[in-house]
Amino acid sequence: MDQMPDQPSKEISETSGGDNDADDLLPIRHLEISDHGKGFVELLGQLSTCPPISDADFSSRFADLSALGDDHVISVIEDLKTGRIVATGSVFVEKKFIHGCGKVAHIEDVVVDAAARGRCLGQRVVRFLAEHARVAGCYKVILDCTSELRGFYEKCGFVEKNVQMAMYFRD
Amino acid sequence: MDQMPDQPSKEISETSGGDNDADDLLPIRHLEISDHGKGFVELLGQLSTCPPISDADFSSRFADLSALGDDHVISVIEDLKTGRIVATGSVFVEKKFIHGCGKVAHIEDVVVDAAARGRCLGQRVVRFLAEHARVAGCYKVILDCTSELRGFYEKCGFVEKNVQMAMYFRD
Repeated sequence: MDQMPDQPSKEISETSGGDNDADDLLPIRHLEISDHGKGFVELLGQLSTCPPISDADFSSRFADLSALGDDHVISVIEDLKTGRIVATGSVFVEKKFIHGCGKVAHIEDVVVDAAARGRCLGQRVVRFLAEHARVAGCYKVILDCTSELRGFYEKCGFVEKNVQMAMYFRD
Repeated sequence: MDQMPDQPSKEISETSGGDNDADDLLPIRHLEISDHGKGFVELLGQLSTCPPISDADFSSRFADLSALGDDHVISVIEDLKTGRIVATGSVFVEKKFIHGCGKVAHIEDVVVDAAARGRCLGQRVVRFLAEHARVAGCYKVILDCTSELRGFYEKCGFVEKNVQMAMYFRD
């Protein structure tokens, strides 16, 4: 998982619940298909390789993920002043046999628009996804990040656990 | 992800393709529902918390995962001499928007029976799962492990990439 969320600003409490005037203009919600026209793909391009996606391909992938219901959720924050998506992150639920047929949530692809950082949007996205995992009955939620982002995720309530290994088939 | 695969023995080549006489008695295949009676759950108990699972719960979870088709595969190695499952690992495919609606595979829950270690069964499981990911069109396959297992996964073709963070809702 590549991640580039914002760092929390000192001015705003970590416990900011998203119910102040500023947050009213920056609501968090699930991805909608119309977000293709609101800069969602371009935002992902700030995180990782993300070439433009045709309407047909976007709709097809959106349908793939929608079919998974609550087992795969993409959250977005829209700036209602500009109509652009300024933050996003996803979470999916893995069903296991261990832990009494338990479930583990995986957070992926968290990114905040470079021009919108310092407003705790990254924390809001991560807390939204972790709460989804908790309500879904997962016994834990995990993610992979660069070592530079360890402190950010610790502020979100995570602890360092293991190392991530990867094998690449192509870039 | 918790993992406890075996370490490869020096006697057996890393490129062992699974087609020698010993491997004929230790075939690798997908999980079958009858593996509930062949020690599959007990084997997972060597990896993580894994209390006994009722037939009904096992069947239900097996059906959940089977419904995902090739997007979620559990591999097992059965010892045909004893009829017991001696190694397992799972892989699931995450569909993304990044990388041109790309796919990433996640390897989870790799474990080899303590009495069957030193026979490269862990490597066979991991290579089987990674090959599934490659054929499924994933651009990479990732996993999390303890730092002690880094060397094992490097021998399987992985490189260290990031840190894993976790938030626990319960044990």
